[in-house]
Amino acid sequence: MVLKSKIRPVELIDDKVFLIDQTILPYEYKKVEITNYKDMAVAIKDMIVRGAPAIGISGAHGLALAAKEFANVSSKDDFYRHLRDAADYLISQRPTAVNLEWAVNKLYDVALSLKDLEINEIVNNVFEYSKKLELEDIEININIGENGANIVPKGATILTHCNAGALATVGYGTALGVVRSAFDRDKTVQVFADETRPRQQGARLTTWELVEDGIPVTLITDGMSGYFMKKGMIDVVITGADRIAANGDSANKIGTYNLALVAKAHNVPFYIAAPLSTIDTNIKTGDEIIIEERNHEEVTHINGKTVCAEGVKVINPGFDVTPHELIAGIITEKGILRPDYINSIKNVKG
Amino acid sequence: MVLKSKIRPVELIDDKVFLIDQTILPYEYKKVEITNYKDMAVAIKDMIVRGAPAIGISGAHGLALAAKEFANVSSKDDFYRHLRDAADYLISQRPTAVNLEWAVNKLYDVALSLKDLEINEIVNNVFEYSKKLELEDIEININIGENGANIVPKGATILTHCNAGALATVGYGTALGVVRSAFDRDKTVQVFADETRPRQQGARLTTWELVEDGIPVTLITDGMSGYFMKKGMIDVVITGADRIAANGDSANKIGTYNLALVAKAHNVPFYIAAPLSTIDTNIKTGDEIIIEERNHEEVTHINGKTVCAEGVKVINPGFDVTPHELIAGIITEKGILRPDYINSIKNVKG
Repeated sequence: MVLKSKIRPVELIDDKVFLIDQTILPYEYKKVEITNYKDMAVAIKDMIVRGAPAIGISGAHGLALAAKEFANVSSKDDFYRHLRDAADYLISQRPTAVNLEWAVNKLYDVALSLKDLEINEIVNNVFEYSKKLELEDIEININIGENGANIVPKGATILTHCNAGALATVGYGTALGVVRSAFDRDKTVQVFADETRPRQQGARLTTWELVEDGIPVTLITDGMSGYFMKKGMIDVVITGADRIAANGDSANKIGTYNLALVAKAHNVPFYIAAPLSTIDTNIKTGDEIIIEERNHEEVTHINGKTVCAEGVKVINPGFDVTPHELIAGIITEKGILRPDYINSIKNVKG
Repeated sequence: MVLKSKIRPVELIDDKVFLIDQTILPYEYKKVEITNYKDMAVAIKDMIVRGAPAIGISGAHGLALAAKEFANVSSKDDFYRHLRDAADYLISQRPTAVNLEWAVNKLYDVALSLKDLEINEIVNNVFEYSKKLELEDIEININIGENGANIVPKGATILTHCNAGALATVGYGTALGVVRSAFDRDKTVQVFADETRPRQQGARLTTWELVEDGIPVTLITDGMSGYFMKKGMIDVVITGADRIAANGDSANKIGTYNLALVAKAHNVPFYIAAPLSTIDTNIKTGDEIIIEERNHEEVTHINGKTVCAEGVKVINPGFDVTPHELIAGIITEKGILRPDYINSIKNVKG
């Protein structure tokens, strides 16, 4: 039996959504109650909830809330029109992660397929389906974890970037799901966590959730990975992904590409762990992935205080793309995809 | 005529040393007055003054202060014994930078060569020589800058790591000396500055001194370099060094090695800019360079506030070693050294 983290960053209870506020971790653990879709959009934009799978489910829940909000409109046409607008609005909050688009559109399609029912019944069904998506996410992650644990050597030190953990999903995690499953089998496994500037999800979130679950974790800054790899201290690198192209090119948090290059130079295998819903077969290569440009204050400020001179320019891409040739495998709930990815992805996604 | 930065982080005036307090930049610009060698040791250890050339000159000035403090001991033997102890104490504050050892020992040797004089005369001569070293450092840097500017393409964007600027030297800078000379010739040159976690010398110091001198600078986090190189936005990488082995392997601020690997992957030339005193021909390769392990709070805290969960482990190497094969050239005051470095270094250092 695998170790199940109790961390639940997104939870639909009746018609309310409870989010762990990830902007204040690890200083404070607080749940935020979301009761309408506009508040959910803000929560996604401001990264109260973050991580591709978690924002996917949150987006779906947001659309369920929207459906309820529109239940009293005058016609079913109006209902669907408002619902479609709400879906587009939710999706637009984070352009890079495909899971958001995927889950919101999935839920919209469910609503559309029920158009012969009364609006209230449609709303009830939409909530039920969104809850089902939520619960499925944990099962998917446990399967990712179990599949991934097979490539983790005995006593391995796993380096990860950003947070692809329980906090980035509904629970258990993708990259950290692999860590959890591997640690469950072998208590000598440990993690090195890249800090992941600018938003420090590695420092703030990955260390927090691994300490919570009693898994040994060492925090390093983003520039240290090569130093430790050269010393032979890193056995495998595993990160999550926000969108994977049909050829395996993978967008993930900024800094992942540098890490993959550094891993390659030391012959340390670099894996992506992500659900199949992260693979967007509509795009052929990573060149087509839209990279979100984020607020400059994420770079110039930490904890509300400036860290640089006034007058400096800033560019703040939120993500980068790791080309498929640097990726040893993509760990999914249906097994580990290997190069060539065009075929292995086609085989599993159809 | 080259642009001369007015920034003077280390200045001996009579028998007092004035340091710009680099721990509080860019928030506050303050000079600290140092009147005894133990305070200088603390200033070096706590990085009130930092950067290999700057701590070299500061160490020499510290030894001059020590000579004055010991001027009233009972015998010349005692004077030299105390002076040697003070020299060793100063050198021990930062083990990686060879310039500290070089400058302090140089000044000790000067004192020793004057052993036939009265102690007071020795002290006066030692102060004079230390001031001479200080002024020579600026000339050396201007020569580094002029030599280096020859390899900067027209309209180049130069990526640098940490701060190898006026603040890291007596003035003008090594890597940023090259930037200053290049910008003086071509006003379309600009800089991208790696933040350089954990201590953020890039964010705090490099942006500050370039904004001061009106040179365009864009701040990026340490994980972004590959993203911008892949887009063709970086033409050359130039960093300083703290110790260079006889084969060209170069120790510099942690993160430099990752940057050099990423540059190599994109065929962006990676240069070191450093005075010849940074080359330590007593060591054959980078494997012999002692890497300073620094305080864990540098990683876990920023501006006094924690950035991670309690219970996380930390390793904080202050430097890493970039192997010679990743280095396109070493820019010195006597020209640009090229591979093979064993021979080019031998030719210039003798």
